[in-house]
Amino acid sequence: MRICVLGGDGYLGWPTAMYFSARGHSVLAVDNCMKRRLEAELDVIPLEDVPDFKQRAERWNVLTGWEIEVVRGDITQADLMNQICVNFHPEVIVHFAEQPSAPYSMIGRDAAVLTQQNNIVGTLNVMFAMREHCPDAELVKLGTMGEYGTPNIDIEEGWIEITHKGRSDRLPYPKRPSSLYHCSKVHDSVNLEFACRSWGLRVTDLNQGVVYGIETDEMSLDRKALRTSFHYDDVFGTVLNRFVVQAAIGMPLTVYGKGGQTRSFLNIKDTLQCVELASVNPASRGEFRVFNQFTELFSILELAERVKRVAQARGLCVEIQGVANPRVESELHYYNAANTSLLALGLKPHLLSDELLDGMLERALEARNQIRERLIPPRVDWKRGMAAVTSAAAGFEAAPEPEREPAAATA
Amino acid sequence: MRICVLGGDGYLGWPTAMYFSARGHSVLAVDNCMKRRLEAELDVIPLEDVPDFKQRAERWNVLTGWEIEVVRGDITQADLMNQICVNFHPEVIVHFAEQPSAPYSMIGRDAAVLTQQNNIVGTLNVMFAMREHCPDAELVKLGTMGEYGTPNIDIEEGWIEITHKGRSDRLPYPKRPSSLYHCSKVHDSVNLEFACRSWGLRVTDLNQGVVYGIETDEMSLDRKALRTSFHYDDVFGTVLNRFVVQAAIGMPLTVYGKGGQTRSFLNIKDTLQCVELASVNPASRGEFRVFNQFTELFSILELAERVKRVAQARGLCVEIQGVANPRVESELHYYNAANTSLLALGLKPHLLSDELLDGMLERALEARNQIRERLIPPRVDWKRGMAAVTSAAAGFEAAPEPEREPAAATA
Repeated sequence: MRICVLGGDGYLGWPTAMYFSARGHSVLAVDNCMKRRLEAELDVIPLEDVPDFKQRAERWNVLTGWEIEVVRGDITQADLMNQICVNFHPEVIVHFAEQPSAPYSMIGRDAAVLTQQNNIVGTLNVMFAMREHCPDAELVKLGTMGEYGTPNIDIEEGWIEITHKGRSDRLPYPKRPSSLYHCSKVHDSVNLEFACRSWGLRVTDLNQGVVYGIETDEMSLDRKALRTSFHYDDVFGTVLNRFVVQAAIGMPLTVYGKGGQTRSFLNIKDTLQCVELASVNPASRGEFRVFNQFTELFSILELAERVKRVAQARGLCVEIQGVANPRVESELHYYNAANTSLLALGLKPHLLSDELLDGMLERALEARNQIRERLIPPRVDWKRGMAAVTSAAAGFEAAPEPEREPAAATA
Repeated sequence: MRICVLGGDGYLGWPTAMYFSARGHSVLAVDNCMKRRLEAELDVIPLEDVPDFKQRAERWNVLTGWEIEVVRGDITQADLMNQICVNFHPEVIVHFAEQPSAPYSMIGRDAAVLTQQNNIVGTLNVMFAMREHCPDAELVKLGTMGEYGTPNIDIEEGWIEITHKGRSDRLPYPKRPSSLYHCSKVHDSVNLEFACRSWGLRVTDLNQGVVYGIETDEMSLDRKALRTSFHYDDVFGTVLNRFVVQAAIGMPLTVYGKGGQTRSFLNIKDTLQCVELASVNPASRGEFRVFNQFTELFSILELAERVKRVAQARGLCVEIQGVANPRVESELHYYNAANTSLLALGLKPHLLSDELLDGMLERALEARNQIRERLIPPRVDWKRGMAAVTSAAAGFEAAPEPEREPAAATA
C-alpha cells in the first residue's frame, strides 16, 4: 500500500514509518519538526540524542534497501496536503502530526492557541485534501483516551447507544477532555465525524492510551541511528518514563496527588500493530470508526509500585513521594473502558512486564549521566499556567503521602 | 453593570448593545467588522444599508444621552481581550464575535479554516483574559441549536443524564453539528466547559435557534441610523428573511429538499431578553450552564406556507418551489428540544405572528427595488463547496415539489 505518515519524525511516527516500510509498503513520512523546536524553547532534551529526520531515513534506506521518502513540511499550510495527495496518491494517511503534550497546551494563552490551531488546521487540511484528491483513501487519525475524561459510566469506543425518555439513538460518546490539548483532539473528532457523514470520507480515530517503551523490531537494526525519542521531562515526558528515570538516579518517584488516577496504557509495539490493523481493515466510506487503543489499565500509584519493585530487585533504593497535583483531575474515580475492537481484528498485546520495565531501567541507567533532574518537577500548573508555577516547581512542594486505593473503584 | 458586547457591530450585537445601554448599563461594544469584509468579498449586500459601527454609536449617544463605547479591534489578536478586561473591568462579557454563517464555512478549505480559527482563537483569548483579569465576571456566549444536529432522542439543554450498564452520569449532550461553522461552536463549548471545570469560570452558553425580525424598541428612535442588518442572500441570510424577500418580488419560495427539516426559531426581541436574563442571573463559579434559546419549532415547509398565506392576504401571488438541497441534512426527522430554563427565568416570548410577518413583508416591499434576485440561489454545496456549484446555482435546478410532513414526526 501507499502509506503517508504525517508526523513521521515523532516518537510514534518514526517507528510507524519504519514498520510499514519493513513490510514492503511505500512510505512517505512528513513532518515540520515543530516538536524539536518546542523542546528547544522549553530547554527540554530527550534522554538520548534523536537522529535527524532525513539522516535516519537515509540510514534506514542504506540498512534495509527500503526507501522511506521524507518531506519536511507543515501540513497547516494550505497546499502541502493537496500536493501530497496529488503526487503520492496515498491509500492510507496515518496522522500523528499534532502538538502532543497536555502540559504544553496549559502553559498559557500562546501555547494553547498554538496547540489548537496546529492540530485543528492540520486536520482540516487533511480532510479537504482527501475530499478533493483521494476520497477513497482511509485516514487513520491518532486521538487519545484523554478525550473522554473520567465519566462515571463505562467508556465505549467513540459511540454510545443512548436510551432517553423512551427513544434511542447511537450518538458520539460525550467527552470531558483533560486539557486544552485533549480538547483539540475532541475538536478533530467532531470535524472528522462531520466529514465522514457529509462527504463520505473513511476515518478510523484511534483513541490511544499512554504509550510506553522505546524498542521496536526495526530499531534493533541500529539502536543508535534508528532509535526514537525518550522524554522524561515535565512537558513531553509520560509518567512511566519519568518513574523509570527517577528510579535510575535515586530520586523519589513523584506521584501527583493521591495517585488513584486510572489511565490506559499500551506498549509502543502495540501502537504499531494497531495502526497496521486499522490500515489493512479500513473503515467503510462514510464511516467514522473509533477504536480505543490500549491494552491495560493502571492507576498511577500502581505504576509507581511496579517500577519501585523492579528497581529494588536490581538493588536500587526507591521511594514513592506524593506531590501536589499540578493538574485538575479526579484522583479517585470510576474507570472502565472498552477496547475490544482492535483485539477482534487480531491485536496480540505486549503487556507490561517486569522484564520490559527492567529493560527501560537499564537504558536509563546506561544514560544516567545525561539525566537532568531539573527537567522532572512539573512547571505547568493547570490553573495558573507556567510562569506562575516556576517558583513553586523549584521548591517542589510535597503533598501528603498517597493513600492506596483500588484501580477501578468508584470515588 | 459593566457589559462588554463582543461582535457589537453585528445583526444581534448592535441591538444588544443598545438594549443594555437603554437600561442604564455601561456598555463597551467591540468588533473587527470582519463580516462586512466577508460580505464585500462575496458580493453580498443587506437589504438596507447598515450604518457604520462608530457612527451609529454616536447617533445613539446623541439621541439618548447614553454612551456606547466602541472599539474596532480583533479579539483573535493576543492582547485585545487582556486590555479590555484590565481597562473596562466587565462584569458580563456577551460574546457574539464569531463568523456566523454555515454556508460560508462550507465554501472550501480557506473559509472553513478562517471560520474555525476565528471562532476558536477568539473564544480562547476570552477564556484566558477572564482567568487572568476578571475571573468573577460571567461570559454569556452565543452558541447554536445547530450544534446538536437532529438526534432521534429529545434534545436537552447542553447536558444529559445517561444511564448505561447500570451506572449513571450527567455528561455533555452528544453533538452532531450541521456544518463546519456549527462544528466551531461545538469546539467553543468543549473549551468553555473545560475552563469552567478547571479554572472556575462562569459561563452561560446560549444555544440559539434561528433569529428573525429586524425591529427592537431601541431602533424605533431612528429607524434608519440605528437599524440592524437584514440579510436575505444565500450565505448570510436566514430562511425566513429569504422567504419574505422572495414573496416581495414574486419569486417562488425555495424550499431545500423535502422541507421537513424542523428548526427552532425566536424573535430578535427575545434574543435580547434572553441575553439579559442570562446576565442578571449569572451562572455560578465553575458552572458551564447551557440554555436552549428559542421559542418555537417549525419545519421549513411550514414557514414557507406561513409566508405564502400572509403574502396572499396582501394580494401577492406566491408559489412554493422545492429545490435540490445544497446541504447535507435529514429532511424528515424526529425533533423535540427542551427550552424551559429561560422561560423559568422569566422569558416572555414574542411568538411568530402574521402581523410580524406582514411587517417584515412591508419592509421588503418598501425596499423592493434594492432586492437582488441573483443573491438568493444557493451557491455553496455542502459536498463540493462553492466553485463547483456556481454553474448549478445559475441554472437553479428544481427538485420535485416538496411533500407535506408533520413537524416533529419520526423519519
